[in-house]
Amino acid sequence: MSMKNLLDQPFVHWMSSGAQDGDIVLASRIRLARNLEGIPFPQRANGEQLSQVVSQLKSSLCDLNSNEQSDYMFIDLEKLPLLERLVLVEKHIISPDHAREASNRAILVKQDTTVSIMVNEEDHLRIQCLMPGLNLVKAFTSANQVDDIIENKHALAFNEELGYLTSCPTNLGTGLRASVMVHLPALVLTGQINRIVNAVIQLGLTVRGLYGEGTEAVGNIFQISNQLTLGFTEQEIIDNLYSVVKQVVDHERTARGGLYADTTDMLVDRVWRAYGTLKYARSISGQEALALLSDVRMGYELGIINEGSNCNFNELMVITRPNFLQKMSDCPELSGNERKKLRAQIIREKLTND
Amino acid sequence: MSMKNLLDQPFVHWMSSGAQDGDIVLASRIRLARNLEGIPFPQRANGEQLSQVVSQLKSSLCDLNSNEQSDYMFIDLEKLPLLERLVLVEKHIISPDHAREASNRAILVKQDTTVSIMVNEEDHLRIQCLMPGLNLVKAFTSANQVDDIIENKHALAFNEELGYLTSCPTNLGTGLRASVMVHLPALVLTGQINRIVNAVIQLGLTVRGLYGEGTEAVGNIFQISNQLTLGFTEQEIIDNLYSVVKQVVDHERTARGGLYADTTDMLVDRVWRAYGTLKYARSISGQEALALLSDVRMGYELGIINEGSNCNFNELMVITRPNFLQKMSDCPELSGNERKKLRAQIIREKLTND
Repeated sequence: MSMKNLLDQPFVHWMSSGAQDGDIVLASRIRLARNLEGIPFPQRANGEQLSQVVSQLKSSLCDLNSNEQSDYMFIDLEKLPLLERLVLVEKHIISPDHAREASNRAILVKQDTTVSIMVNEEDHLRIQCLMPGLNLVKAFTSANQVDDIIENKHALAFNEELGYLTSCPTNLGTGLRASVMVHLPALVLTGQINRIVNAVIQLGLTVRGLYGEGTEAVGNIFQISNQLTLGFTEQEIIDNLYSVVKQVVDHERTARGGLYADTTDMLVDRVWRAYGTLKYARSISGQEALALLSDVRMGYELGIINEGSNCNFNELMVITRPNFLQKMSDCPELSGNERKKLRAQIIREKLTND
Repeated sequence: MSMKNLLDQPFVHWMSSGAQDGDIVLASRIRLARNLEGIPFPQRANGEQLSQVVSQLKSSLCDLNSNEQSDYMFIDLEKLPLLERLVLVEKHIISPDHAREASNRAILVKQDTTVSIMVNEEDHLRIQCLMPGLNLVKAFTSANQVDDIIENKHALAFNEELGYLTSCPTNLGTGLRASVMVHLPALVLTGQINRIVNAVIQLGLTVRGLYGEGTEAVGNIFQISNQLTLGFTEQEIIDNLYSVVKQVVDHERTARGGLYADTTDMLVDRVWRAYGTLKYARSISGQEALALLSDVRMGYELGIINEGSNCNFNELMVITRPNFLQKMSDCPELSGNERKKLRAQIIREKLTND
């Protein structure tokens, strides 16, 4: 994928369909926090030191390309307008934090968009691997390979007792955050979601909305991730998350089955009405679009609906985000109303071209 | 139209499109109340007398057929199950009152369904003519012709001073009730409807819902009719109603134009969403269906919507009524849910076949 495509095209690899538990799990993400030895953490570093981090990491491009047999793109965030940085957030390529400030920040993105390395976010490096469906092991293997290549070239801040040193103590140790994006409409509809979320939290995990901390679970999409990084091996962290997510997936699947069996008419009607509204509305808010897409996605997975089944709902969820819409528009600054109209138009076109 | 078609097919003549002011006026109706001389009014008559009225009127069939150059059907309501009588109400061929009791009641219906004569409703005869659009004069001419044929054959209860004698004093004199069915969604949406209705009442007219007295104006459909029958000539009654309806139509047209100009995006979105819901819902109540059909009908008249434009919305409004649905169903008694499903299915088929 070229840089132009990365910014202009909605589709990135994690949106692929047909992955393991893809009816409920949208994507799996592994993130490793690393820092270069002898340079202060980004928040404490001066401009020169930050720039030094960027150039050191840029010099790894060659090693990444030869070892990974793939082309990496180096993107200097300073050269990217805010809008394009925000589009990358909506596509889950970078974090909201990384988009906010551009000075001395960069990313390295693998050709197939599965790996992105954020430079000078909270830590010098955040290696991120994003895979479709429930795919934590593959994502970890991928991130680990990149980590090895970096570690071969640069001395990383590491302590025998504490493990990898990170800017925030919650990332100390493995520096690993593993997270899974899940779609839980039936648990929400049947009112079981609070119980499930509390149980997951009790097991030492975190549950957040679609775009990370402090965001709401719009479209019934939740992110489940590990809380602790210290005192466990990477394997233990991943195994624990995997087994909890597997249980959540089972609960959702059972809830969907029950909902379908007990309230068939209501559910079928609800799903088709959502589809009809998405297909014909001329103005739609982001919140409503995600809620309706959630119904349609579930209806498609339950076999209720066939029309529009070739649409990629993961992609549609990203296309309809505000910054992506602005990026697609010819208008220099969309008003709220114009954005709602454009959103409705794009959804309509996608569902009609199906 | 055969009797089978009259009962099975939703379409009757008044639903035709392309009539005068058909964008707002659904239909015009003239009803003449008449009684045979020397026989008590139906509520006071015994079975034998009522039966005598039926056979006298039945004997007019020949005269009607030769004078009107059309075949009239004679339908003995006693031989029609309640459901089929109620279907005739939904198609506005007979009144709810006439359907309630069947004993010694009958109707004579002209082949093209423009004229129906109810026998032994509140009066011995109620000659009714129903025309599409704003067409009071033509409807009156038609009803009058039938009245002349009947009067040539039978002595009618008539008093030089009071005019035609009727069971209820509100019908005394001309025995004429002229009414017009109008669709006023923009006056409702812009909150002007109460003011307009009050003004119409001040002018001595009555405003009611879709199925007569005491029914709500579902689907934003209102019936405007004359209140007084005594002390005015037929011409005066019709002229007065015509000129008031013309003003209401102008107000509605202005309100539609204003609504479209001032809130284009909102209105376009509303209309298309209504269409999308009708096209995809799998269960829908009669109330909701009429409300959505009202939006779509207005959208079609304003040129907002083209899809489905070959659908006859007047027909759809009748098809989706409870008794017509029951008549179309194979099920001996539809439950509320089954009816909602069948209604949604029929609307979907109509909009898809378009």
